[in-house]
Amino acid sequence: MIFRQLFDRSSGTYTYLLAERPGGEALLIDPVLDNTGQYVRLIDELDLKLVKAVDTHIHADHVTALGALRERTGCATAMGATARIECVSVHFHEGEKLSADNLHLDVIYTPGHTNDSYSFLLPDRVFTGDTLLIRGTGRTDFQNGDPAAQYDSLFNKLLRLPEDTLVYPAHDYNGMTVSTIGEEKHHNPRLQVSDMQAYVELMNGLVLDDPRMMDIAIPANRACGLLDAA
Amino acid sequence: MIFRQLFDRSSGTYTYLLAERPGGEALLIDPVLDNTGQYVRLIDELDLKLVKAVDTHIHADHVTALGALRERTGCATAMGATARIECVSVHFHEGEKLSADNLHLDVIYTPGHTNDSYSFLLPDRVFTGDTLLIRGTGRTDFQNGDPAAQYDSLFNKLLRLPEDTLVYPAHDYNGMTVSTIGEEKHHNPRLQVSDMQAYVELMNGLVLDDPRMMDIAIPANRACGLLDAA
Repeated sequence: MIFRQLFDRSSGTYTYLLAERPGGEALLIDPVLDNTGQYVRLIDELDLKLVKAVDTHIHADHVTALGALRERTGCATAMGATARIECVSVHFHEGEKLSADNLHLDVIYTPGHTNDSYSFLLPDRVFTGDTLLIRGTGRTDFQNGDPAAQYDSLFNKLLRLPEDTLVYPAHDYNGMTVSTIGEEKHHNPRLQVSDMQAYVELMNGLVLDDPRMMDIAIPANRACGLLDAA
Repeated sequence: MIFRQLFDRSSGTYTYLLAERPGGEALLIDPVLDNTGQYVRLIDELDLKLVKAVDTHIHADHVTALGALRERTGCATAMGATARIECVSVHFHEGEKLSADNLHLDVIYTPGHTNDSYSFLLPDRVFTGDTLLIRGTGRTDFQNGDPAAQYDSLFNKLLRLPEDTLVYPAHDYNGMTVSTIGEEKHHNPRLQVSDMQAYVELMNGLVLDDPRMMDIAIPANRACGLLDAA
């Protein structure tokens, strides 16, 4: 497998490039508009063909490259069905697969950070978007966020994966690049709660500023990043 | 193998944590002083014992955590023999191995960026310090840098590794986390030269500012990061 983790320093976003083999089909998870040229160049250098650009959810902190990548490469664009985004060509649901050649990502619906948050699973790793971060979890105070739903996504879905499953989140702000389900289960401070009610109280007690880019990013991302504002 | 790439955002430095197995011995490559607490916590959470902290060379852009890690964990500290650093307990040479349990890194002497630059090789990956960067190479204009020596290190040592060898550098400023020898051979603009003379001219023609931290970092790093200035 070809696997590349790419970091957008200004928003702290991780983008993932995946392909089964050199010369084959590629898939991008959570690409950032400002880095479109970098992705296209890298995909070309690796002799890959981008077939799908996918967002884990509607991001509030950066503008997506989905639309720009579709225009430059002709790739399909994909978001979860609950996002109700008209500009994408694929609206995926839990239980479906996102594929590039024989690489198949299982779609898991993991609402809570937003009501359109999904995770993607390979046999040895999971892409958790903003649902499960390294030693953290995504905030639940806007975009139909719901801490009870997030508790369910975390405890009844993601944390039930094998403990050695690698965790690749959509962000990190502390220089961490990867974790495992076991590590987060045991050492993520947000996951040491006794029950759902305690988690809801913890999340509702957070006092957080709005993301800097929010007023630009959300409307732009509803248009696949192709609004003039973006 | 347990493998963690950690990123210091202020200096763009990559630090690598390696261990053969949970509960076993760990080795850190190019740790940054400001992040010492993060390393110690992570090593503890992963149930590892730090046995060795290693610098690829005397860094000019950040202060090393070697001394602080020795004080906090009792680990050995290691630098290449040509660095002539009195505060470290291990002075390694080309052809020797740096080990943690049954994980053995082969030491390769790769001067050019500095005259104390070394790379470390595992069967599937190489840690290249500032010698080979992703789509770049380390500058050669101070600390006994030598573009002809760097050409030799690159073309006669690193680029002779199998093309699928993963390349993990000490820095990246463009959000790239990993590359391969084949990718750099074919797509690194600095490596598309016809011969050593052309490489020397290319490197000598670069006009670069001194690293921001240089006047603090170099003397501090000669003292394993434990100078008051650090």
